[in-house]
Amino acid sequence: MPRSLRSSRRRFLGGAVAGSAGLALGARELLQAPSAHAAGAERGGAGASHGGGVNGPMFAQGATVDYEANGFNPTDILRDFDLGRTSTMPDGRTLREWSITAVDKEIEVAPGVVFPAWTLNGRIPGPTLRCTEGDRLRVRFVNASEHPHTLHFHGIHPADMDGVPMVGRGVISPGEEFVYEFDAEPFGLHLFHCHVGPLAEHIARGMYGTFIIDPKQGRPPADEMVMVQHGYNTTLDAQGNQLYAVNGIPFAYMNEPIRVRVGELVRVYLVNILEYDPINSFHLHGNFFNYYPTGTSLTPAELTDTIMQAQGQRGICEMRFPTEGMFMFHAHKSEFAELGWMGFFEVTP
Amino acid sequence: MPRSLRSSRRRFLGGAVAGSAGLALGARELLQAPSAHAAGAERGGAGASHGGGVNGPMFAQGATVDYEANGFNPTDILRDFDLGRTSTMPDGRTLREWSITAVDKEIEVAPGVVFPAWTLNGRIPGPTLRCTEGDRLRVRFVNASEHPHTLHFHGIHPADMDGVPMVGRGVISPGEEFVYEFDAEPFGLHLFHCHVGPLAEHIARGMYGTFIIDPKQGRPPADEMVMVQHGYNTTLDAQGNQLYAVNGIPFAYMNEPIRVRVGELVRVYLVNILEYDPINSFHLHGNFFNYYPTGTSLTPAELTDTIMQAQGQRGICEMRFPTEGMFMFHAHKSEFAELGWMGFFEVTP
Amino acid sequence: MPRSLRSSRRRFLGGAVAGSAGLALGARELLQAPSAHAAGAERGGAGASHGGGVNGPMFAQGATVDYEANGFNPTDILRDFDLGRTSTMPDGRTLREWSITAVDKEIEVAPGVVFPAWTLNGRIPGPTLRCTEGDRLRVRFVNASEHPHTLHFHGIHPADMDGVPMVGRGVISPGEEFVYEFDAEPFGLHLFHCHVGPLAEHIARGMYGTFIIDPKQGRPPADEMVMVQHGYNTTLDAQGNQLYAVNGIPFAYMNEPIRVRVGELVRVYLVNILEYDPINSFHLHGNFFNYYPTGTSLTPAELTDTIMQAQGQRGICEMRFPTEGMFMFHAHKSEFAELGWMGFFEVTP
Repeated sequence: MPRSLRSSRRRFLGGAVAGSAGLALGARELLQAPSAHAAGAERGGAGASHGGGVNGPMFAQGATVDYEANGFNPTDILRDFDLGRTSTMPDGRTLREWSITAVDKEIEVAPGVVFPAWTLNGRIPGPTLRCTEGDRLRVRFVNASEHPHTLHFHGIHPADMDGVPMVGRGVISPGEEFVYEFDAEPFGLHLFHCHVGPLAEHIARGMYGTFIIDPKQGRPPADEMVMVQHGYNTTLDAQGNQLYAVNGIPFAYMNEPIRVRVGELVRVYLVNILEYDPINSFHLHGNFFNYYPTGTSLTPAELTDTIMQAQGQRGICEMRFPTEGMFMFHAHKSEFAELGWMGFFEVTP
Repeated sequence: MPRSLRSSRRRFLGGAVAGSAGLALGARELLQAPSAHAAGAERGGAGASHGGGVNGPMFAQGATVDYEANGFNPTDILRDFDLGRTSTMPDGRTLREWSITAVDKEIEVAPGVVFPAWTLNGRIPGPTLRCTEGDRLRVRFVNASEHPHTLHFHGIHPADMDGVPMVGRGVISPGEEFVYEFDAEPFGLHLFHCHVGPLAEHIARGMYGTFIIDPKQGRPPADEMVMVQHGYNTTLDAQGNQLYAVNGIPFAYMNEPIRVRVGELVRVYLVNILEYDPINSFHLHGNFFNYYPTGTSLTPAELTDTIMQAQGQRGICEMRFPTEGMFMFHAHKSEFAELGWMGFFEVTP
Repeated sequence: MPRSLRSSRRRFLGGAVAGSAGLALGARELLQAPSAHAAGAERGGAGASHGGGVNGPMFAQGATVDYEANGFNPTDILRDFDLGRTSTMPDGRTLREWSITAVDKEIEVAPGVVFPAWTLNGRIPGPTLRCTEGDRLRVRFVNASEHPHTLHFHGIHPADMDGVPMVGRGVISPGEEFVYEFDAEPFGLHLFHCHVGPLAEHIARGMYGTFIIDPKQGRPPADEMVMVQHGYNTTLDAQGNQLYAVNGIPFAYMNEPIRVRVGELVRVYLVNILEYDPINSFHLHGNFFNYYPTGTSLTPAELTDTIMQAQGQRGICEMRFPTEGMFMFHAHKSEFAELGWMGFFEVTP
């Protein structure tokens, strides 16, 4: 990581940053102080630059954010699949309708750190839209933000439904709305995000969500959940991220582990929309998973415990835990893990 | 991106850089001014750091470079497969012969920005050599550059034909020449590049091309094209790239979209030779493609719309557009897209 | 690469760094001076920033490190598979037992450059543990370091054997020991590393090793070897690496090529544990290999000459050299190659 970023990160950790408009940084250290025997700290090594002790980093004193004020909770987001409002079309096909609203909103992304987000439906990540291949999809997009936006879906659709500037309806200005309508194809794990310039900022501010198209025959029954990998550039300097997370809040699943059952099939819909960094990765402890890149095949591509995704890539991870206990998962990029992208599965009988 | 790079990039955009020898930077902003409501701009966020408005970045006022003066055009390069001069050997095999000349050449890589390139046959990327597995290949390499070079081919060949220093003929000094000769194997999508130290600079200056070995049975008929992903370190500081592109000129296929037909199989030979950055990626809008990594199998590895490649990786993308219209493609690395690595397919009936 | 890192790297090369405690940098340039016609050097380009001439970088005057003083040699590490002490359990299964000791140790990682490493069994990388699926494994871990550590194995095992803080025995303090015990599954290529915070530093200091679980039916006979990709942050600033290597010493296999036979199957167990950088990659010259990601399938996923791995990823590469001669292999990330991550296969009849 460049020294400049590390410096700003240290400022962030120290809480002495003069906030940009709308950005309030906490006045105390957010991460736990390193323990005395974290050797790096003594000699100005790596140990000094993050807030974790030997037990690893966490927000100081187990503090967390105000989920109620934020209006969303990572544990709820995990299994919140939005099937839309369904009806049957004259030709017998299913029509699914959603309404997604862009809203500027301050979100407490770490204790005392308020991020001036641009959200979809008031949450980060935005909703997980779920449908079945062949459905007709109708997504009403209302721009209640002060900024121009679009919804660009990954998937197959006509050009004028692509949600990019200068094609079809193009940019949706503040106060305007548009209905994206297309067929659900191909089955797999996709995503959607704003495609307005500056592209990096529109993504980094939080304009993204998950888009699942189930195969007609379905997938085997499982405890299903979505994990969207992303970050926060809390300094808004477009130089990189100060925090990393899945589903909105760093360390959320350290404080509140994800509960799953021994022997039950667990299916994770894993999406990477992280801005600024070239890749993200996912490592599961003490277990292996079958990996289905993009979810477009019913045959796994690999049995592993570590995969990487570039921005826009996504894949399905399927696993069963043979025994009970606490099993970590995190980016196998130490920097991301130490700045929030880590959590626990709590496996019970 | 490190602050130092961002700084030099801003200098580049502002045109106030004192040019290195042979480097002339334009005296005006090269990219479009951000629109007034690009929020980042107002608060010193990401919006200020690239030249695009909400519609995305482009060269200012639709300006482009002087293709005639450059001596090559990205649209021509796209479908320019060089089959060489063929003859039949006594044993009945096909002999293919090419001549490739290294030439130092100033190339206008963005309006008003002249890059002191080291080229193969006067173009960036160099030629796309194409043959069939089992052919005998003979590549005469003439070094008309002021710098020492080699041609290192990816593919199977004897050590003394490998084009690395101190093995076989080794470095080809200015004014010298050498004939690389070997059999075409294995079928797939490969590349070649100079392998002289400093390796990063010899690649970054433009010393690379595509090398396709067709399977004996051929591939299904298609509208075929090559895309070589690369960048320009216009400041020559070896710190990173200021511009990104496929096939030589940033934004080339924004100005002049790639024309393809509804329903026709499109086959993209996609190569990544980008220097300095750890990965590159390719995202297709509104459609999916079958991906054949390295092109060494006739069975696709994945159906997706986003893949990533490290330097030296390459793969074949096959797609059909079901409907007409304008479909973007670009790196799903916002920084690369906003600095030139984006384009359009124009699909017509 | 950020300017700040490049600067510190130049300082490193110039040898003018005031060492941190335990860090002694050589007082002379470590890498060969660039040749006069390396163009970049004349204009402050890339050529000036690494020490290689046109023939590529190497330690100056062919110097190497004192392997005897280090106590390990990369050529020995290559084929050093530690099968442990075996016995038969009452149920007929094989029990394998190892003892691994964490030791703080100064290692000469480049001529005159002493790195204050945290090692497993006194070497970098740590031992290559090898077993067969279904074996019972017992690893006694003795912490003779001044720092707290754990062994975290990739693979399937109970939570309390996972080697992470606060789960099971958790952190093993200096002077303490613990026995990790679990069954060998699944077959494949895995790794182990310390999982104590700051995680980045504990990995970067050298706390890792390879963990191979052979399938019951075995793999075809081959000349087998392990390559662990890693780096050295010799400035201990947690900003990135100054040196890159496989198996402990930069350029080791340039000085002492890996000897293999024409036509013989070569199997490389390739692991990436590189800290700080987002990816690593492996490119083989003049040849192709079958790649088995994570080694968990007996069917290769790709025939290629270039693969990439994020930290924690690994895979098996199988190849045969059809002809004798010297064949390079290196990261297809020029920076890594030029700072040590390159070598030769010497293929003999």
